[in-house]
Amino acid sequence: MAAVPSTDPTELREEATLSAQQSAVARMSRAARLLLNDEPLPPHARTLLNRMCLPVTALWCRVLRFDPSAPNWPDRDRFVVPSTTMLPLLRAMLRLTGSPTANTIPLEYGRHPAVEVAPGLAGQGVAAAVGMAFAEQTLARRFGRSLVNHRTWVLAQDTDLATGVAMEAAQLAGRFGLDRLAVLVSPPAGPDNGDFADSLARFSASGWTVRRVDAGSAAAISSALAATLRARKPTLIACLPSSAPEVLPGPQLPPEEELTGPWSPTARRGATTRRSWLRRFARHRLRNAFEREMQGQRPALFDEDWQRACRWQLRAATGHATQDAGFAVLRALSEILPELVCLTASSAYRLDLAAPVALPATFRARTRMLPAEQSCGIQDHGMAGMLNGIALHGGLLPICAASMMTVDRMRSALRMAALMRRKVLYLLTGDGLALGDGGGGWQPVEQLASLRAMPHLAVFRPCDARETTACWEAALNWQEGPAMLLLCPYENQYGPLPPPAFGTPSRGGYVVKQEDNRQVTLIASGPEVAIALKASHHLARQDIRATVVSIPCWELFAEQPASYRKTVLGTSGLRVGVEAASSFGWERWLGEEGVFVGMDDFGTSAPANALYERFGITVEAICEKVRARLLTSGGERGPSLRTPDQPRTRVRGPLTTRP
Amino acid sequence: MAAVPSTDPTELREEATLSAQQSAVARMSRAARLLLNDEPLPPHARTLLNRMCLPVTALWCRVLRFDPSAPNWPDRDRFVVPSTTMLPLLRAMLRLTGSPTANTIPLEYGRHPAVEVAPGLAGQGVAAAVGMAFAEQTLARRFGRSLVNHRTWVLAQDTDLATGVAMEAAQLAGRFGLDRLAVLVSPPAGPDNGDFADSLARFSASGWTVRRVDAGSAAAISSALAATLRARKPTLIACLPSSAPEVLPGPQLPPEEELTGPWSPTARRGATTRRSWLRRFARHRLRNAFEREMQGQRPALFDEDWQRACRWQLRAATGHATQDAGFAVLRALSEILPELVCLTASSAYRLDLAAPVALPATFRARTRMLPAEQSCGIQDHGMAGMLNGIALHGGLLPICAASMMTVDRMRSALRMAALMRRKVLYLLTGDGLALGDGGGGWQPVEQLASLRAMPHLAVFRPCDARETTACWEAALNWQEGPAMLLLCPYENQYGPLPPPAFGTPSRGGYVVKQEDNRQVTLIASGPEVAIALKASHHLARQDIRATVVSIPCWELFAEQPASYRKTVLGTSGLRVGVEAASSFGWERWLGEEGVFVGMDDFGTSAPANALYERFGITVEAICEKVRARLLTSGGERGPSLRTPDQPRTRVRGPLTTRP
Repeated sequence: MAAVPSTDPTELREEATLSAQQSAVARMSRAARLLLNDEPLPPHARTLLNRMCLPVTALWCRVLRFDPSAPNWPDRDRFVVPSTTMLPLLRAMLRLTGSPTANTIPLEYGRHPAVEVAPGLAGQGVAAAVGMAFAEQTLARRFGRSLVNHRTWVLAQDTDLATGVAMEAAQLAGRFGLDRLAVLVSPPAGPDNGDFADSLARFSASGWTVRRVDAGSAAAISSALAATLRARKPTLIACLPSSAPEVLPGPQLPPEEELTGPWSPTARRGATTRRSWLRRFARHRLRNAFEREMQGQRPALFDEDWQRACRWQLRAATGHATQDAGFAVLRALSEILPELVCLTASSAYRLDLAAPVALPATFRARTRMLPAEQSCGIQDHGMAGMLNGIALHGGLLPICAASMMTVDRMRSALRMAALMRRKVLYLLTGDGLALGDGGGGWQPVEQLASLRAMPHLAVFRPCDARETTACWEAALNWQEGPAMLLLCPYENQYGPLPPPAFGTPSRGGYVVKQEDNRQVTLIASGPEVAIALKASHHLARQDIRATVVSIPCWELFAEQPASYRKTVLGTSGLRVGVEAASSFGWERWLGEEGVFVGMDDFGTSAPANALYERFGITVEAICEKVRARLLTSGGERGPSLRTPDQPRTRVRGPLTTRP
Repeated sequence: MAAVPSTDPTELREEATLSAQQSAVARMSRAARLLLNDEPLPPHARTLLNRMCLPVTALWCRVLRFDPSAPNWPDRDRFVVPSTTMLPLLRAMLRLTGSPTANTIPLEYGRHPAVEVAPGLAGQGVAAAVGMAFAEQTLARRFGRSLVNHRTWVLAQDTDLATGVAMEAAQLAGRFGLDRLAVLVSPPAGPDNGDFADSLARFSASGWTVRRVDAGSAAAISSALAATLRARKPTLIACLPSSAPEVLPGPQLPPEEELTGPWSPTARRGATTRRSWLRRFARHRLRNAFEREMQGQRPALFDEDWQRACRWQLRAATGHATQDAGFAVLRALSEILPELVCLTASSAYRLDLAAPVALPATFRARTRMLPAEQSCGIQDHGMAGMLNGIALHGGLLPICAASMMTVDRMRSALRMAALMRRKVLYLLTGDGLALGDGGGGWQPVEQLASLRAMPHLAVFRPCDARETTACWEAALNWQEGPAMLLLCPYENQYGPLPPPAFGTPSRGGYVVKQEDNRQVTLIASGPEVAIALKASHHLARQDIRATVVSIPCWELFAEQPASYRKTVLGTSGLRVGVEAASSFGWERWLGEEGVFVGMDDFGTSAPANALYERFGITVEAICEKVRARLLTSGGERGPSLRTPDQPRTRVRGPLTTRP
C-alpha cells in the first residue's frame, strides 16, 4: 500500500510564520468583501456574509483542500453551502482562488462543480454534509488515508441548525464520531430570542465540540481552525459578531490578476496536494476498485455473481413474503458490491451484512471488502438527509431500510435526492394493511400516491419473491434518481403466483394471467395481486373472463411504448384496480369507467386480514363489484357484444371504493 | 370575575402526611403491577411499564386532576400517552380510579374519552402535548385561572424525545415558557448508546428543567412532582432504573371493589375539584363565551360580521394576489373570532392580529378579546405538531401561516390532524412557480397531488380575491378534518376574472366562462385560471369554443352530485387541465383522452414568468396543444360533427406535459 502521509498535509504551520499568513488572510478577506460589495444583497444577508468573510477566507487560504483546476477531484475537501443566501461568499472565494469558472458558470447544483448540494429546506444541507463525512469515514476505512483524507465543511445559517432534521443528523454525526466534519455558523443578523445559544447547546449535547470565536479576530479563527483539525468530535464553530471595530476594505478593488495571482495560496497548496495524491493513487493497490466505485460502475462479472448470490440467498431466506425476499436480495448484493452502505432506521432491521455467509469463497475473494452497515435509530429524517450526502460524495451506493410509515418524515430529504437525481435506494417495510394490532390506524393510505407523484423517483411494490428480485434489479438500473421498494411482511395466503403470461416485471407492468377476449382486466400491485388472481378464478367459474395485470412500478410502465401498455391493459372491457391504498391517481390506468377496490380512509387498528375485510379488499368484494358493473353497463359481455353507437354508461367523478 | 383559588388545588400536602400518602401510592402501584401482569406484553414493554408504574401511580394518586365520572371536563389535566406501548399503564390507572369505561371501551382515540391523542410516529404526541399546554396558557390568559387551571402530562418513551419534531416542539415549549407541561420518560429497556443522556441534555438546552429520579423511590418521585408543580419552565422527569431491589407485588390481585374503592384518592380529589370548578364556572362572567368556544360553535351574528369585516379588510389589502386576499380575510376573521390562534412559521408572516384596526367599534366590543399570534421560526414541524394539540385541547381554532415548500416537513403532523379529523387551518404561501430567483428549483411540483391524496384534508387553491374569500368560508365549514389554502404571491397579469357563469367556488368547482356547444373545456386552478381564460379568448378568435372551469377544491367538487359535475365539466369535447404542478391525479377530471399543461419536473431557478415559459404553461402552449389535438382527433369540431361509429383516437398511458 502507498505510504500514508505522516501528518495531515493541511495542518497549520508554526507560530513563527503566523503573522505573515494572517496578513495574507486579512488581505484576501478584504478583497472578498469588495467582491461582496458588488453583489445585490438584502441587508441581513450582507451583514451575515460580511461577518463570515474572515473565517471563510481563513479556511480557504490555509486549510481547505481545493484545486481550482480540478474542482471535483475525489479527495477534495467538501465545502457545503446549504442555502442560496451564503452562495455569494463561495463565488467570491472561487474568484479569489482563480477558479476559471467562477464568473462563467452560474453557481447552481449540477452546473458548477464547486456547488456540492442544491439548496433545500433548512437543515437538509447540514444532514447531507453529515452523510458526506460518513462517506469519507467509510471510504477511508476501505482505501486508507493515502487515498481518502479530506474533510467536510459547512457554511450554515442559524436556521439550518434549528430544524429537526439538522438536530437528528447532528446526533448521528456525534454517534458515529465524524471528527472530520465542521460547521461554520453565525448568529442571525436580525433579532434572536436566545435560540442560537440553544442551538449551540443542543449540538454540544449531541456530542459535538462547540467553539465560539470572534468573527473579526484572525488569531482566534486561526486557532479554532487548528483545533478543529485535531478534534476527535464533529466541530461547530460559532462566529460571533466582532466586538473590535472592523477593518474596512479599501475603496478600490484591485485588478483581477492581483486578486487571483499572488493572493491564491489555496490554489497553489491545492495543486500541490492533488499532485501528490495522484502519485499515491497511481501506485495504489486498490486503484481500480477506487476508480470503478467513484465512477459508479458495476464490478466485473456483476450480473453473473448477482444471479448466483440471489438464488443462494433466496433459498436461505426464512419466509416468502416480499420483505424476506427484499432483504435476501440485499444480502446477496452485499456479497458482490462492497460499495454498498446500508443505514437502518432501527436495530430491528439489523442485517448483519458483515457476517460471514456460506457463499462460495470466490465472491468474497473478488471483493475482499465488507459493506458498511449502521443503525440510525429513530432519527430517520436525519438518516435520509445523510443518504443524500453519501450519494453526493460518490464512491458508495447508499441504501436504507426503514418502515413504510416513516416515509412521510423522510419526505423532504427524499425530495432532495429526486431533485438532485442521486441514486439512493429505500427499502420500506411494513407495507399494506399489515401493521396489525398495535398499529392504531397507521395503515399507509395516501403514501403510495404521494410517492408516485414525485418526479424522478421510482416506486416498486412487488407481489412475490420473484417479482421482488426483478424489482431490485430494475431499481438498481433506474438512472433518474432515487428508487424505493415497498415490502410487505406477510405471506400471500393464496399460494404461489404463476410466471408472467406476457411481459416482465422489469417493464413496470405485465400480464400475470391472460384470458382471451377478456371482459375484465384486474390491475393490482403488491400483496393485492394474489387477491386479484384468486378473484379471476372465481369470476371464471361464473363465465366472466378476467385478465390479471400486475403493475409493480408505475414509472417504468409509463415509459414503455404505448403498444405494450395497450396489450397489457387491454383495449376494451371493464378495468378494475385493486390496491390497499388510496384510489388517487389510479384513473391513469383505469380510465373514467374503471372500478377501484381499495381504501380512502384510515383509522382502524386490527390484524391485517381483518383490515382487508374491513376495507372491502377481498375476493368477494372484487367479484361483487365486477358483476354489478357488468350488469349496469347493459349486460356487456365482451368487446364483440358492444354496439359502437351505444355509448357506455359514464360514471363521472372520483372512483368510489365502497358501495 | 370569580375568585381565583389562592393556591394550586393539586398542590402536595405537608411533609407530616407524606408517609401515609406514600404508603397509599405504594399499595396502588402494586395493584397496577398486578393488572399489568395480566396483559400480554413483549419483554421490553413490560420492563418499561413496570419501571414507570410507581411514578405514574404517584402522579395519578396525588397530582392529576381527573374525575372518572367526567373524563372530558374542560379543566382536567391532559394525560397524553403518545404510543401504544405505554397504553396498558393508562388502562391500569383507569381501572384503579374506578373509571366505569376502563374495561368496556377500547383505549383508542375517538372511542375512549381518556385517550387524548391517537398514536402516531414517534414525537408527534410530545409535539401535540406542547400544543395542549400552549392552548391552556392561551385560554388561561383569556378566561383566568378560575376556569383554566390544568396541566399537561406526557408518558413518553425515549424514542419520542429523540425525533426532530419533538426537539422542535421542545424548543418552542421552552421559548413560550410552557411551565405547566411535564414529560415523564424512562431510558430504553434495551441497549442504549448514550442517546438517552443526549436527549436529556438537548431538552435542558431547549429551556427545560430536567430532573433525574430513581423510579423505585416514592420519596424521590414525590419531591420531583412537587418541584414540577412549582416549576417556571417545562419539566422533563427522567425515571431511571431503580438501584434498590424492587418491591414485588403480592401474588394475588385484590377484588375489584377493594382496588377501586378506598384506593381511589384520585377519583375523590378529582370529583371535589370538578364540583368547585363547576360552582366557579356557573357564576363566571365569561361563561357563555367559554361554553361556546369549547363546543366549537360560532359567535352570534358571525355571518353578518364576517361579510362586513371581509369587505373592509379586502378593501384595505395592499394587493390583489390571492396571498394578500387570504391574509386580509384572516385579519377579518381575527376581528370577530377571538378563539383564533395563529402560529406563523417565520416573523416574515407577522400578521399583527392584535394591532388596532380601523373597524367599527361594535366588532371589537362584541368579542372584547384579542386572538393569539406566535411566531415559531423555522421549527415548522414542531409547530404543525402543536397545532394538532391546540385543536385536541378544544376551545381554540388553530391556524398556521407557512410557506408552501415546507409542507413536506409538516406532513407527518398534518396526517395526524387528518387521521384524528381535527380542524386545523393551514395558510400556505409562495404557491405556484412564484418562488423567483432565489428559489433554486424549489417549485412545488408534486406537493399538490400528494396533499390531495390525503384523506379528510381539503386543499383549496383559489384563483383570485373573490374565490379566496369563498374558499376561506368553505375551509371554515369543512367538517371532516384539516383544511389548507394555497396562496400565490403574484398578481394575475391578465386582469380581473369575470363572476361565475355556473356554480360557485363553494361547490369546489364551477364554470368561469360558459360557451354553448363547447368543443374544449379548459380546467384550471389557482393562478392558472387566468391563463386558461386568456387562452379561451385566443381560441375563440380561431372559432374554437372553449369553456373555462375553475376547480379550487377537488374534495368539495368530488362531493357534488354527478349531475352538477357533468354540467361543469361538460359531456363531450376535449378536456384540457392547466395547473403549474404535476399531472398526477388529473386523469380524474380529464379522462383518458385529456391533455394536461403543467410540469412534471423540478430544478429550475428563474423569475416566475420565465418559469411559466420554461415549463410551457402559457396561453400559446395551451392553444397549440388544443389545435393539435383537435386535428388528430379527425378534425372534430364539436359534438355534432362526431360520427358515433368512428372512435376517437386513444392515447393511452400517462399524460404528457411537453411535446
